[in-house]
Amino acid sequence: MTATSARGPYAKTAAIKRRIVEACAEAFGETGFHGATMKDIARRAGTSYTGLLHHFARKEDLLAAVLELRDERSTHYLRSASALDPSHNPVEALDGLLAVILENELQPGLMELHCVLSGEATSPGHPAHGYYADRYRMLRQFYARAFRALADRGELRSTADPEELAAMTVALVNGLQAQWLLDREGVRLESTIRAFLTSVVPALGELPQDIGSAAKAGTRS
Amino acid sequence: MTATSARGPYAKTAAIKRRIVEACAEAFGETGFHGATMKDIARRAGTSYTGLLHHFARKEDLLAAVLELRDERSTHYLRSASALDPSHNPVEALDGLLAVILENELQPGLMELHCVLSGEATSPGHPAHGYYADRYRMLRQFYARAFRALADRGELRSTADPEELAAMTVALVNGLQAQWLLDREGVRLESTIRAFLTSVVPALGELPQDIGSAAKAGTRS
Repeated sequence: MTATSARGPYAKTAAIKRRIVEACAEAFGETGFHGATMKDIARRAGTSYTGLLHHFARKEDLLAAVLELRDERSTHYLRSASALDPSHNPVEALDGLLAVILENELQPGLMELHCVLSGEATSPGHPAHGYYADRYRMLRQFYARAFRALADRGELRSTADPEELAAMTVALVNGLQAQWLLDREGVRLESTIRAFLTSVVPALGELPQDIGSAAKAGTRS
Repeated sequence: MTATSARGPYAKTAAIKRRIVEACAEAFGETGFHGATMKDIARRAGTSYTGLLHHFARKEDLLAAVLELRDERSTHYLRSASALDPSHNPVEALDGLLAVILENELQPGLMELHCVLSGEATSPGHPAHGYYADRYRMLRQFYARAFRALADRGELRSTADPEELAAMTVALVNGLQAQWLLDREGVRLESTIRAFLTSVVPALGELPQDIGSAAKAGTRS
């Protein structure tokens, strides 16, 4: 068996699995983990129920694959947040967040998936409860490091402390995304988060317009 | 038929309906509107499937009853928000919000129901999509009126405008509730919202400690 002949079936399997995970992301985004059925997911993916079970034996396996797909698509920025040290360039770290929000507005389907899954995962028995607890904890630590570095430099303008500001930032991003999905005309997503961040970090408002994409590109390695 | 004899069956029907709605709130809080089945709800309520359908023919009717129950329980404060004019006592209006948050921490089941349902309702096809869109719009208007009144009195300390601060307040309350349900040790719910509000409205920090409950009692009429 040559490498070339082996590539065929492997590539085919990968393509089928990818199609199933995308169909599943769509189903979870509409009716949540609990609401979606394996039969509906198979139908959306254009495969048989048995074929689906061959690749993903349990709905929990599909959930893990969907969360991985979402992380992959929601830019490299937040995935690499735990590895980055935002205290070196804290203003750029916050600016990177704003660039991610702008990108998210172009992918409302992904945002819906996040709001639906993270909402139902607040229930203790949900299989993604631990995933979201860890994710938010990691994000709070990331932003707290950025706000602490800004406080050390005398660039923080708030009576709230860095840990409180970090929890506020994570809450604002999630809460405003939900409000925006419910009322896209009435809610300005990116500019409201920008207004919050600039009110506590005035230096963020002094960045030239194009720094956003540059900073984001820098975190994408 | 006397009034007394009529009271019996009516009271019994009301008690059964109440038990069904409470069982349903529990089921929706665990697995969402889409995940809960009518059979599971009947089982939790200790009634037959046919008995359930007699009182609530569709799952959507149950959802409406659950949202009504939630509004009823989550104190009178937010229910009466649309009728109140917060510009008369804007500091007390914000302090009333903090009192509600403290109450919510004592009812995590209700908070879960809110996070799960409002999360899945971001999907456009969800039967509570319009309910949450209206609710958040009404809350934004309420807080915007309070922040505008504070700006007029020179008591607002923020570079963000009243409309942005209103959207931030609604997002913070929802986003921090979700974080708290996922990590009750790592997140301080009421004090983080208080830190945000006092950073933009310093006068809120100058209220005597017991004003909170007094203000809340005032809106409970």
